Amino acid sequence: MNAIILSIGDELVLGQTVDTNSAWLSQRLASVGCGVSAHATVGDDQGAIEQAIRQSAPRCDYLLISGGLGPTADDLTRQALAAATGEPLELNDRWLAELQTFFAARNRPMPQANRIQAMIPRGARMIFNTAGTAAGIEASLEACRVFVMPGVPQEMKIMFEGDVLPHVRAAGGGAVILSRTLHTYGLGESAIAEKLGNLMRRERNPSVGTTLASGTVSLRINARFGSASEARKQLEQTAEACLSALGSLVYGQDEQTLQEVVGDLLKVRTGQSVATAESCTGGLLGKLITDVPGSSAYYGYGWITYANQAKQQLLGVPPALLREHGAVSEPVVRAMAACAQQHAASTYALAISGIAGPAGGTPAKPVGTVCISLAHPAGAEARTFLFSGDREFIRDRSAKIALTMLRYHLLGEPTPF
Amino acid sequence: MNAIILSIGDELVLGQTVDTNSAWLSQRLASVGCGVSAHATVGDDQGAIEQAIRQSAPRCDYLLISGGLGPTADDLTRQALAAATGEPLELNDRWLAELQTFFAARNRPMPQANRIQAMIPRGARMIFNTAGTAAGIEASLEACRVFVMPGVPQEMKIMFEGDVLPHVRAAGGGAVILSRTLHTYGLGESAIAEKLGNLMRRERNPSVGTTLASGTVSLRINARFGSASEARKQLEQTAEACLSALGSLVYGQDEQTLQEVVGDLLKVRTGQSVATAESCTGGLLGKLITDVPGSSAYYGYGWITYANQAKQQLLGVPPALLREHGAVSEPVVRAMAACAQQHAASTYALAISGIAGPAGGTPAKPVGTVCISLAHPAGAEARTFLFSGDREFIRDRSAKIALTMLRYHLLGEPTPF
Repeated sequence: MNAIILSIGDELVLGQTVDTNSAWLSQRLASVGCGVSAHATVGDDQGAIEQAIRQSAPRCDYLLISGGLGPTADDLTRQALAAATGEPLELNDRWLAELQTFFAARNRPMPQANRIQAMIPRGARMIFNTAGTAAGIEASLEACRVFVMPGVPQEMKIMFEGDVLPHVRAAGGGAVILSRTLHTYGLGESAIAEKLGNLMRRERNPSVGTTLASGTVSLRINARFGSASEARKQLEQTAEACLSALGSLVYGQDEQTLQEVVGDLLKVRTGQSVATAESCTGGLLGKLITDVPGSSAYYGYGWITYANQAKQQLLGVPPALLREHGAVSEPVVRAMAACAQQHAASTYALAISGIAGPAGGTPAKPVGTVCISLAHPAGAEARTFLFSGDREFIRDRSAKIALTMLRYHLLGEPTPF
Repeated sequence: MNAIILSIGDELVLGQTVDTNSAWLSQRLASVGCGVSAHATVGDDQGAIEQAIRQSAPRCDYLLISGGLGPTADDLTRQALAAATGEPLELNDRWLAELQTFFAARNRPMPQANRIQAMIPRGARMIFNTAGTAAGIEASLEACRVFVMPGVPQEMKIMFEGDVLPHVRAAGGGAVILSRTLHTYGLGESAIAEKLGNLMRRERNPSVGTTLASGTVSLRINARFGSASEARKQLEQTAEACLSALGSLVYGQDEQTLQEVVGDLLKVRTGQSVATAESCTGGLLGKLITDVPGSSAYYGYGWITYANQAKQQLLGVPPALLREHGAVSEPVVRAMAACAQQHAASTYALAISGIAGPAGGTPAKPVGTVCISLAHPAGAEARTFLFSGDREFIRDRSAKIALTMLRYHLLGEPTPF
């Protein structure tokens, strides 16, 4: 059982609105075992809509269309559907009465333009819209069932849940797709794939795929089975297989963030805390740590020492170290971390100093060079990294690698990078 | 001149990731007069990708594809393109050398899997990727030029701007849509719309619309005319009309951010600087200020005093003030700002203390209560706000309102909120 999702609107093809309906519909369809093979978007052009319908219908069991049901001249989906099915548009008296009631309830006369919203191709079924004036349409095109819904997300969602989804669910006979996402940070996509080996082979079910977003390599596991209980069991088994292939490279799953996981590791160690001393990240590391509600349990002190003078004056980094090694050096970040740890009387401290660019690089220390130190009760260790990417990426990566270093320390394991 | 945009990825058709690349590409193409007739999305399936390429290419001058260029087994766009063009994949020695250099610079061996990223169909052109390992591909399919770019938005954008857009722009020369976006911060969407009045009427060309994102209300002006010079002239006139309706509510345009604009205002006042003292925002304000390359010219010192103890110990806020008024109070933020200004010997200082939630609210100080102070050479002023939204929104709004208070002070005007 598969579906194609077709979105209509000039604002979409012009890029003025990001299409979020298609992703939402895909997720809802997956939950009842209906796969989605494609999304398509065309503008408010009757010919283009008709062509898209003709092209998609033979390739899917369900064609879900949203948009183009409004009362204005640029709303042309009903006309295109009529042309594709070869049936004339006919007035639906029941919906016309609904429209008149809708306007009467608002003490407004019904504009003549809205009359078109009560018209559907002959033989099609009108779908009631409880949230607006654009009724939906269900029609058949050979073996494909076509559902047309309004483009306004709230109206579309109500109509989909109330009318369309029950059809699809009933036709599916209980098949479902369940998903889980496991997150890793630190290694690249290919290194993760190498460790997963056969788990990622194309035809596998549950399938395992990787995606990369802001340096986080995530594994998406999709289990497609005939029953929810089987899908759950298989999903669990594959997730366990991934976890044993990757071990502590996986920091969390689904909505969990790296900063939450590190926070949880600190929170269970009652009384332990972390402080921050940041140069090139300018507060980003502190911001990430305090993204987490309740982070005051383990975080209270941070320094943004963007200027060298601030590193000396606020933290007490010896001027000789700065002169001798430069601000972006392991001795300096080690001192920053140790001083922060001491002033905050914290268990741990993280310090970052680097060259985020675009200017400021030298042959010896190019843009992307970042030194990170973790001070812990037994001392302070420091590492030098070379990150590639723009200023935003380098800063983001610096802060997340710092969190990852702390995470591995708390796990009692060496960092894998 | 028209284009079709094709996005590849299971995560997209499954609805696990919202496709933002297509909207961005559409906007950029429109700016050089290239219309977009359709978006299409298919999963990581070689046959489906090949079919989508074959179907789209005859209908457009440019087919822009993003995604599926990674090193893993589920990245199949290059294979599908090779099949669609009927050419075998060949190793590109130059990119292979680039890949080897990329990994060598990181002291890592190149995984065997990455070798595939140096392969393109015979006769195609490799497009250098300056931000990652996935090179792009340019190929021809009859009269259609096909550009394949990475799916990672940062990498795709750099490649599009540097390589693809110049091709499209050179081929254009006809009718154009020129756009400009003006940004405001502080007032709501309807207050801005009221001030714009007739400028926002539907049939106007250039058109003016508003969008709201993270508290920033932006005006999008689209001018669609037969020539670039006419479009430019009309765009300029409408932009000026919007500016005279809104005055200093507009802080910047297009890619300009609030933090850049505030940075520019400080930079022209040689020797002036700002320091930060943050509680609930936990470093976000410092992070925003240092988003801007060259911000070290006016920013060097920041304190993250998340704990009350830190406010006393690092900044010197009198314990009596904290006891008497609480950490979220105008006297305390005023003291935070004044102390930060003094320790940093800066011209200005911004201090923020608030309740970002979800816990910690009281009837007198509910979640969303945020006190912000600006210290300037003549003293320190403080304001109390009640923001509604989730933790992320409250923190974001706090930092941006602080920047806005500094902006109005530098403009010599009262804040309009």
